[in-house]
Amino acid sequence: MANFVNRRRFAIEWGHCDPAGIVFNGRFFEFFDWGTWALFEAALGVRQHDLLSTFGIFGLPLVDASARFLAPARFGDTVELVSQVIEFRRSSFDLTHQLMVRGELAIDGRETRVWAGRSPTDPSGIKSFPIPAEVIARFRLQ
Amino acid sequence: MANFVNRRRFAIEWGHCDPAGIVFNGRFFEFFDWGTWALFEAALGVRQHDLLSTFGIFGLPLVDASARFLAPARFGDTVELVSQVIEFRRSSFDLTHQLMVRGELAIDGRETRVWAGRSPTDPSGIKSFPIPAEVIARFRLQ
Amino acid sequence: MANFVNRRRFAIEWGHCDPAGIVFNGRFFEFFDWGTWALFEAALGVRQHDLLSTFGIFGLPLVDASARFLAPARFGDTVELVSQVIEFRRSSFDLTHQLMVRGELAIDGRETRVWAGRSPTDPSGIKSFPIPAEVIARFRLQ
Amino acid sequence: MANFVNRRRFAIEWGHCDPAGIVFNGRFFEFFDWGTWALFEAALGVRQHDLLSTFGIFGLPLVDASARFLAPARFGDTVELVSQVIEFRRSSFDLTHQLMVRGELAIDGRETRVWAGRSPTDPSGIKSFPIPAEVIARFRLQ
Repeated sequence: MANFVNRRRFAIEWGHCDPAGIVFNGRFFEFFDWGTWALFEAALGVRQHDLLSTFGIFGLPLVDASARFLAPARFGDTVELVSQVIEFRRSSFDLTHQLMVRGELAIDGRETRVWAGRSPTDPSGIKSFPIPAEVIARFRLQ
Repeated sequence: MANFVNRRRFAIEWGHCDPAGIVFNGRFFEFFDWGTWALFEAALGVRQHDLLSTFGIFGLPLVDASARFLAPARFGDTVELVSQVIEFRRSSFDLTHQLMVRGELAIDGRETRVWAGRSPTDPSGIKSFPIPAEVIARFRLQ
Repeated sequence: MANFVNRRRFAIEWGHCDPAGIVFNGRFFEFFDWGTWALFEAALGVRQHDLLSTFGIFGLPLVDASARFLAPARFGDTVELVSQVIEFRRSSFDLTHQLMVRGELAIDGRETRVWAGRSPTDPSGIKSFPIPAEVIARFRLQ
Repeated sequence: MANFVNRRRFAIEWGHCDPAGIVFNGRFFEFFDWGTWALFEAALGVRQHDLLSTFGIFGLPLVDASARFLAPARFGDTVELVSQVIEFRRSSFDLTHQLMVRGELAIDGRETRVWAGRSPTDPSGIKSFPIPAEVIARFRLQ
């Protein structure tokens, strides 16, 4: 059994880069966010902006994010972002986001997110909900 | 009679700048947005995040934005953003945002925004509303 | 004779959007920048990051940018950015960037940029240079 | 002996926030970067943009960054970012960035950075250099 993996190729833009000519670090976490939404869209077959309404959730808020920066990405590089869920728990899950530059792992990212909806008792609050079994099943390849 | 003017000083950060070592252009429009909210907070005496609930509006959506780039802003510059409303119309208004670098006008910005609320007939829609006279009055200095 | 036109499709991401659920205005100017580089790459047949070294320039700094916001772009929209140079002058040029959302023009952008290199007399300075005729020729379709 | 600590207060802006109305995660890493530069400026008494030339370095590239998200930050919040170096090694160092919202720790960030300069043998390369003892001394309070 293997994980569903989403691969996404894109170009590093001028505006992604800082005065050292390399991608500014905050941008990588933005890329990881792109990767998470794209992965869920691909695995669940539901368009990104319909995920919230389809599953009655309010978002996939982060509780933890990290990255190891092994090699820089530069303006004009075409990169590939490889995203997968490596573990589902009751209402949270861990993802990895590996950014490949020229075929080598350059940025090794990791996120922990929560399956979250509106609190039934506090309209302005957010609470975690159990991740539906059918959601988890879509991320497992036989 | 003069306009209420908001002045805001801040530092140009490393992450604001591009590989040419100058502020990336999209950032200036972000700065103008900071300037608009800060101006309304100062003129109306209502904290930014309470503006929407206090006045029953949904936001101040842009219909037009422009900037002339006269001189660059660089990492480490302390800049001053001078924002004012130069004209109020029934439900829209024009602002200028002048970014001063080392005492000289470096970026000359302009925005047209709308006083907007939820459409009463379409919950997902936005429509313009007349700007209250007491709002306009707060932007005029005797 | 017609202009060379570059079309670029991409998705509006969660992180592009603001609390009103629509693309934050500064992002559109970032998109226009993507469009300019992609247009030059396509018209000149030179990869983006090689443009500077190939033509001995330091960048394509903006002197003017503007946008009219006709309709919002939202999370999950697939948009098309249509970019072209509408006028070349001696050392500056005008571009339009039209962002199409669901087949309609949503954001109507315009930029004026300069063909710029290092100043020969001041190593830290930038000055405009004449745009080579062969560059201009590549943007004209017979 | 205690660490030199830099505290920086700023407002959460509309454009920092995503459709859930909370700060978009990539922005926190941008804030941490602000915090690092401000800390070095304050501890060393050298303006941010002069740090590179004063110490012959090319930057402070990240090798590792992480954050735990304990509570959200929202539009209009005034936050305080508390930054310090918690360990210096030969040519790298660890920082913490604690973002306080309404007096509580909301985001607990950590970075590992390198004291980096131009490679003497490869002009396009970057290599780590030993951190000068007088730099380290400025971060230690008696």
